[in-house]
Amino acid sequence: MKHFTISDLKAWDRFKRANFVNSLSGFRPVSLIASINEMGVSNLGVFSNIVHLGADPALIAFINRPREAAPHTIQNIEVRGKYTINHIHPAFVEKAHQCSAKYPDGVNEFHEVGLTPDYKDDFNIPYVAESMVQMGMELSEIIPMQNGTFLVVGSLVHAYVNEAALGGDGFINLAKTSSMVSLGLDAYYEVNPFQRFTYAKPDKESGIIPF
Amino acid sequence: MKHFTISDLKAWDRFKRANFVNSLSGFRPVSLIASINEMGVSNLGVFSNIVHLGADPALIAFINRPREAAPHTIQNIEVRGKYTINHIHPAFVEKAHQCSAKYPDGVNEFHEVGLTPDYKDDFNIPYVAESMVQMGMELSEIIPMQNGTFLVVGSLVHAYVNEAALGGDGFINLAKTSSMVSLGLDAYYEVNPFQRFTYAKPDKESGIIPF
Repeated sequence: MKHFTISDLKAWDRFKRANFVNSLSGFRPVSLIASINEMGVSNLGVFSNIVHLGADPALIAFINRPREAAPHTIQNIEVRGKYTINHIHPAFVEKAHQCSAKYPDGVNEFHEVGLTPDYKDDFNIPYVAESMVQMGMELSEIIPMQNGTFLVVGSLVHAYVNEAALGGDGFINLAKTSSMVSLGLDAYYEVNPFQRFTYAKPDKESGIIPF
Repeated sequence: MKHFTISDLKAWDRFKRANFVNSLSGFRPVSLIASINEMGVSNLGVFSNIVHLGADPALIAFINRPREAAPHTIQNIEVRGKYTINHIHPAFVEKAHQCSAKYPDGVNEFHEVGLTPDYKDDFNIPYVAESMVQMGMELSEIIPMQNGTFLVVGSLVHAYVNEAALGGDGFINLAKTSSMVSLGLDAYYEVNPFQRFTYAKPDKESGIIPF
C-alpha cells in the first residue's frame, strides 16, 4: 500500500490531484441528465455523483459542480422544475462522453453528439431514446454545499426500464441493460454480477439469491 | 421498455418498492465505514451512497440512513470526528455484507465478521486491513435531508492505495484492486475497463487513453 497524506496531494498539480481524488472514492453510476432552457433548447450533461436518498418518497439526488464550471443543467432545472436521468450503455458511451464538452448555452447536445430525444407521457422534457433505463424527475430542492457545488434533490415521477432487467421482487439487474459506471473524470467501465445475498442478520450467515 | 409511474410504485409493498428504487439510479461504489463509539468499541457498516464533492479541498460525502434505522456510524462520527472508508473486494464481500446486519450498539463488527482492524499513522480509527483502498476522513459537516437521512461530508486526511492501481497522472484504475460496486440492497458486482477518453471539447472528437 502506498500512503498519501492530504499535504502530499496539495503539492501536486491540480490535474493529478483531480484525477486521484475523483478516482479514490470508487466507481460511480453514470448517466446523462437532459433538461430544457427557457428558450426551449434541450441540454445533455454527464453526471456521476448520484445518490439514492430514499424509496418512499422516491428521492434521487445528484451533485452539480459550481455554476461557473457547469451552469446549464442546474439553471434549466431551476427554470423548468423537471429533468430526466438516462443510463449510459457501451453502444453510445463515446457520444455520451462528448456531452461533457463545454458547449455554449443554447447548443442542443442531442443534435451535436447524435443522440435521439424521446418525448413521452406529457412530461415535456426529452429522455435519451438510446437509454434502457430512464427516469423522469421533478425538482424537490437544491442544497448549496460548502465548496460551491450543489446537491440537487429530485422526486421520481416516471421510470422506464428495459423488460429484460426486471425481477419479480422489484430488483433491477442492471447488468442486463449493460448500464455503465465511470471512474475519475474520463474512464468508463462495464459491470458483471458477482453475488446477491439475503438480508443479513446478526445471528446467522446470509444465503445466496440467484441473479 | 416498461413504464412505471410513481403511483404504480406507491401501490407496491415496501420491499418491492425499496428493491426497485434502490436499483433504478444505478450501480454504486460500496465501502465499509469504520468508526469508534465513546466506549472505544469499533463499528463497521456497509455504505454505498458515496459522492465526490471536490478535489481541492478533497471532500467526500455519504448518505447515512435515518437514525432509527442506522444509528451507530453517524453517532460515532459525531463523537470522534473521524472515520475510515474502505473499499470492498470479492475476497471478503460476504464478510462485508454481514456488517449490514443490525448488531446491538457495542458489538465489534470486526470481530463478529472476521475482518482485521488496522491502526496506523496515529489516526486512532481502524482501517480494514483486507481493503486495498483506504481513506482516513475527518468530519466536516452533517446536513439533515428532508426524508430523515443525513449527508455526512468529510475531508480526506490519509489515502492508502495498492500500488498496482496507481497511474502516473493520478488516476487510480480500481479494476486492478477489484473494487466492487453494489446494486439495490443486496447485490454486488465486479467491474471491467471499457474505455478511457481524452477531455471532451466541442469542436473535436475525443481520443482514447490506454488503461
